[in-house]
Amino acid sequence: MVQRRTPVVAVDIGGTSIKGARVAPDGRILARARVATPVAEGTEAILEALARLCRSLAGRHPVRAVGLGVPGAIAPRRGLVHASPNVPCWHDEPLGPRLARRLGLHVTLDNDANLHALGEHWRGAGRGVRNLLLATLGTGVGGGLILGGRVWHGDTGRAGELGHTVVDPAGPVCGCGARGCVEAYASATGIVGAWRRAWSVDPARPRPRDRRILADTPRTIADRARRGDARARAVYAAAGRALGLAVADWIQILDVRTILLGGGVAGAFDLLEPLVRDELERRLFGVTPGTIRLERAALGDDAGILGAARLALGRDAG
Amino acid sequence: MVQRRTPVVAVDIGGTSIKGARVAPDGRILARARVATPVAEGTEAILEALARLCRSLAGRHPVRAVGLGVPGAIAPRRGLVHASPNVPCWHDEPLGPRLARRLGLHVTLDNDANLHALGEHWRGAGRGVRNLLLATLGTGVGGGLILGGRVWHGDTGRAGELGHTVVDPAGPVCGCGARGCVEAYASATGIVGAWRRAWSVDPARPRPRDRRILADTPRTIADRARRGDARARAVYAAAGRALGLAVADWIQILDVRTILLGGGVAGAFDLLEPLVRDELERRLFGVTPGTIRLERAALGDDAGILGAARLALGRDAG
Repeated sequence: MVQRRTPVVAVDIGGTSIKGARVAPDGRILARARVATPVAEGTEAILEALARLCRSLAGRHPVRAVGLGVPGAIAPRRGLVHASPNVPCWHDEPLGPRLARRLGLHVTLDNDANLHALGEHWRGAGRGVRNLLLATLGTGVGGGLILGGRVWHGDTGRAGELGHTVVDPAGPVCGCGARGCVEAYASATGIVGAWRRAWSVDPARPRPRDRRILADTPRTIADRARRGDARARAVYAAAGRALGLAVADWIQILDVRTILLGGGVAGAFDLLEPLVRDELERRLFGVTPGTIRLERAALGDDAGILGAARLALGRDAG
Repeated sequence: MVQRRTPVVAVDIGGTSIKGARVAPDGRILARARVATPVAEGTEAILEALARLCRSLAGRHPVRAVGLGVPGAIAPRRGLVHASPNVPCWHDEPLGPRLARRLGLHVTLDNDANLHALGEHWRGAGRGVRNLLLATLGTGVGGGLILGGRVWHGDTGRAGELGHTVVDPAGPVCGCGARGCVEAYASATGIVGAWRRAWSVDPARPRPRDRRILADTPRTIADRARRGDARARAVYAAAGRALGLAVADWIQILDVRTILLGGGVAGAFDLLEPLVRDELERRLFGVTPGTIRLERAALGDDAGILGAARLALGRDAG
């Protein structure tokens, strides 16, 4: 019998592995599991892997429902995956209904970036606020919006593409093909690219002395910046200023005062924050800087799982 | 007795005049009136003018409620005007409750730009959609957001400052003091400023031959552009591109596919639209251009009155 204290199963579908957890209604993670994503074997194999993972997480315990996080374009209400970069064979795949039939359980799904935001809202740095924006500074820059306590999906489910806020139309080329998106500065790709440009390193034609630069990651570049390396400081300063311009836009448009930064590049929050705040003071006339909560996301890799759990618990109907 | 067919009184408080109307629940304007805003005489005089206007609009008809549009920072739920550029003496003025006591009627109020958006959503170019953004291209660029069928206010009631979306951090100085906001390009001030710069006219030290340029308005500049004047075309092209960058940001962030342009500068919609669309195609990878409704607002000066009427009718609780 399904009771208020019955846990849910939460699943995060990545390109290489599927992570899952059994989660209590208060957000405690009761069990974890992980399997490889059998992308090459197709949808049937993925569904079977998902079903096995969910069953093993449930074990002999009653489970209320399943929540799934999937990267890509999702139609949450219909449980449809329009397209996912991690599973290229999916086109309008009715993943939710198919898994539900297999498991005999209610299955809800949403975009992984939205679920990161929902997780942070439920159990992380955004607890207790009605509205928040989460920008995930990873390989690219993703995002999720919580408006009025719910995930905001927009007209077609694509809301939250925070990484493509323009900060300089003449800026560096972004992964999307356009120029000067905030992602081109404040993602791992943007940081590494700026670092290589600062040393005039051409990754296609590296000179022997470039090897050290080519091995650098956002983390090692941040360490160099903290130790006073001028070029590394300049790279993070440019990323922080770009992020500040984007955050200023988001606040002007939505007047959402809780902005969370997640993802690997947010590990350099100490380097980024002063520049973001500086830009906000310059651009937000009449907004008291103290009313803006700019914080690092708190849940790390668990944000997606906790967001999926929250979704399965069913109080998010956005 | 208040019935479903009972009209409301809708009022738009401007700096020089207060416009009002009696509006039927279906949006028909049944009567109009206008009085001068007695700004110099203070709050009591303004309240008295408002009350008289409302009573004269009601006449002997029953009236359900009053809706007020006020420029500036508003706390809609409490009926408070934090500050208004048009009535500088108001600081946290409880305008709603005070007028309600005087009239013995329910009074609701909101920011005028929000009510423009609400009016367009109810009776204008945004009928039938759940979500829309209205950018009002006037002296400045204001905005209002309808999300999920309701006005979106944000955390502190300041949402919708669409004019301060950054399009180029090295661009012209905006009225807000920062550089390169879309308002610095696509407002009347921005258009006129760019036109004068195109002719190297310094308004502080005009040469005799500058008189013609100084007399130009966004409308006459648009006429020149339509007749093929290269400088005038370049001014509107820059405004259209800037607007395109801003609209791209709004769509990336919110995935709202109905974008309305209002205000005097939108009179040049024919000049602006191709450049906005061009920029959207460049920046919105994976978004089918045909899914974006970019239209001129339909209600002109009545948008604010109709939005205030819709507010008074009480189905907007955002």
